[in-house]
Amino acid sequence: MSELTVEMHPISGVYLGTCAANIKKNGQPDLVIIELAQGSLTEATFTQNAFCAAPVTVAKQALAEANPRALVINSGNANAGTGKQGMIDAEQTCTWVAAELGCNPNEVLPFSTGVIGENLPMDKLQSGIPEALANLSIMGWPQACEGIMTTDLVPKAVSREVMVEGHSVMISGISKGSGMIHPNMATMLGFVATDAKITQSCLQQCLSDAVNVSFNRITVDGDTSTNDACTLTATQQADMPVIDSQDSKAYQDFSKAISEVMTELAQMIIRDGEGATKFVTVLVEGGEDSEECLKVAHAVALSPLVKTALFASDPNWGRILAAVGRAGVSNLDIDAIKLFLGDVCIVENGGRADSYTEEAGQAVMDQTDITITIQLNRGKVTEVVWTTDFSYDYVKINAEYRS
Amino acid sequence: MSELTVEMHPISGVYLGTCAANIKKNGQPDLVIIELAQGSLTEATFTQNAFCAAPVTVAKQALAEANPRALVINSGNANAGTGKQGMIDAEQTCTWVAAELGCNPNEVLPFSTGVIGENLPMDKLQSGIPEALANLSIMGWPQACEGIMTTDLVPKAVSREVMVEGHSVMISGISKGSGMIHPNMATMLGFVATDAKITQSCLQQCLSDAVNVSFNRITVDGDTSTNDACTLTATQQADMPVIDSQDSKAYQDFSKAISEVMTELAQMIIRDGEGATKFVTVLVEGGEDSEECLKVAHAVALSPLVKTALFASDPNWGRILAAVGRAGVSNLDIDAIKLFLGDVCIVENGGRADSYTEEAGQAVMDQTDITITIQLNRGKVTEVVWTTDFSYDYVKINAEYRS
Repeated sequence: MSELTVEMHPISGVYLGTCAANIKKNGQPDLVIIELAQGSLTEATFTQNAFCAAPVTVAKQALAEANPRALVINSGNANAGTGKQGMIDAEQTCTWVAAELGCNPNEVLPFSTGVIGENLPMDKLQSGIPEALANLSIMGWPQACEGIMTTDLVPKAVSREVMVEGHSVMISGISKGSGMIHPNMATMLGFVATDAKITQSCLQQCLSDAVNVSFNRITVDGDTSTNDACTLTATQQADMPVIDSQDSKAYQDFSKAISEVMTELAQMIIRDGEGATKFVTVLVEGGEDSEECLKVAHAVALSPLVKTALFASDPNWGRILAAVGRAGVSNLDIDAIKLFLGDVCIVENGGRADSYTEEAGQAVMDQTDITITIQLNRGKVTEVVWTTDFSYDYVKINAEYRS
Repeated sequence: MSELTVEMHPISGVYLGTCAANIKKNGQPDLVIIELAQGSLTEATFTQNAFCAAPVTVAKQALAEANPRALVINSGNANAGTGKQGMIDAEQTCTWVAAELGCNPNEVLPFSTGVIGENLPMDKLQSGIPEALANLSIMGWPQACEGIMTTDLVPKAVSREVMVEGHSVMISGISKGSGMIHPNMATMLGFVATDAKITQSCLQQCLSDAVNVSFNRITVDGDTSTNDACTLTATQQADMPVIDSQDSKAYQDFSKAISEVMTELAQMIIRDGEGATKFVTVLVEGGEDSEECLKVAHAVALSPLVKTALFASDPNWGRILAAVGRAGVSNLDIDAIKLFLGDVCIVENGGRADSYTEEAGQAVMDQTDITITIQLNRGKVTEVVWTTDFSYDYVKINAEYRS
């Protein structure tokens, strides 16, 4: 496992405590508590999966009732598919944390990630909570980043100081997730905090916009795992005027920075894709609307035949073409479409481009970062999706995960 | 490669000739011509892929104009993504066959399967055609079966003598295809012939019904590869009254037999799935309509996480549950759903069944043929889909296919 090499800016009002509560079998850190100072505002987005995990249900409910004072995250066990007992366990976890912090249970949001269908080991959680709280520190980002990992090979963190209308604002965030071959089934968690002063409605819009261009671009059509969640907390402690209008320059600056941080966190998940050897950008240009661009992008990005060709560094553009053709876009004019591997045009006029050579295609495929561009030439909309190749190791990791 | 062990009934009026025209690099048979006696009726279904291959376009057009007298099939090259040259080559192939047989070019239907995006080697086809025709024989089914194979490990053929209202009818069919992990991108070809006397409209309905419960049940939502095709020919040479009404007992008998033959041919493709070690039946019961049952079935059948768990013989039912949850069925009542591995209930009331034991789940997973049953308990519709597990060998076969 790699160590975190990014330097994390502390965020005033955010304290992180991590410990190894033996929920994971390997003795690695697996329990994280993030305490948020009074006055912090938090927004969150959650999985659309009908079988959402107990902590998701509990967190949604709590968020509707109160302003969060703490987040409690365990790895190693997803508390999903655990029925009524799962709900009781998630609520109990919040109650314990709230008792220690002196707040209400509904001011604590629970998050879990790991194996589905096993009950939380409550005795381990109970003894871990005081230990994690004892470690609370404004400098605790790197430990927290490790504590939320499951099959991740590298910790994922991004930190930025940005200028918002001349005022310094700090943003730090961590994410986890690596089961990326069919990303809608892997749990992705993201926790981002900033010291910015911003209203609840602006914060909500900012999170929604940022997730849409980041985590949702490594996900299929709103499909998600049982546990996916992303939070954005603003502690309001920066020395600046409140961002209170989406039309303001300050909002634009801030929103752009949050989107960039979340995009980096999302791309790190792709780069750590299970068994991934390639980072693949699928760019669809010239669509009539966003929906058809994403249909094409996902058909290509999720095609096992395209993914295995990428693993083999094989410029088998016929597989890309076949994926575009089956994406379900109506009245697709095949002859108008152009496909590119990197800068190399591979398909035009319904067939292989006259200028294409196997050597040129091979040179692109031999790289680690590959962009596949599909020009539909029927409109003005562009969309992008990030994915990985499909390797022996993907099968190995997922065939052996529970053993 | 296995040898065909099924005994094939000859079909009066159907002659098959096969040769090795060196289109495949390995010297195996790769060119098949099937001559159909005057008076034969033929129906066909083709891929929905927007990038359909040149032979598909040519065959559809020919079928609209004339009654086929011959089918010409090459393996090793799909003649897909080949633009205008592909159309010229497919038409030229038909012209050559027609000249030899003394019929019109539009009485010959072309089919191709193999690598996408390379032009047909026309010199090899031209010299192969007389050789294949020289081998024409009513006994030529086994050779034809081999001649249409690409990455298939086993030849796929089914033959039956059935009684239709007291009259003996022969049915023989062959199929190819093995890229089954995401079946909509693998080329499946099926050629079925019978000596039955039947009207064109009854034959058309019969093919449509049979494909819907067979080849389309190993395919996603009408998505198909560039070259998929299935034909049904009735030579009208059996000693029987004409089947001319879909309400007749004779039609019911005949239609049932055709559906059974095509289901067997389709299941053989799954059993020969690339790198497959399991044959998996996904059964969805109690749905409100066919669409939602198929959504759930496909979400489970195509989940790489479910497939890798199946490869590992790991009763990781949490992954099945997560796939059901993300299938996109609206207002799904999680607590009403039951999941079974074989006869073992694994999920009820939103979590692991009280009666479930890991040992019982393991015993089912250790088998080669596994049925996953999902009871939605909200309606009366049942649907079934067949699929395979996802192994190291799948990656190996598809990463190395062109080399």
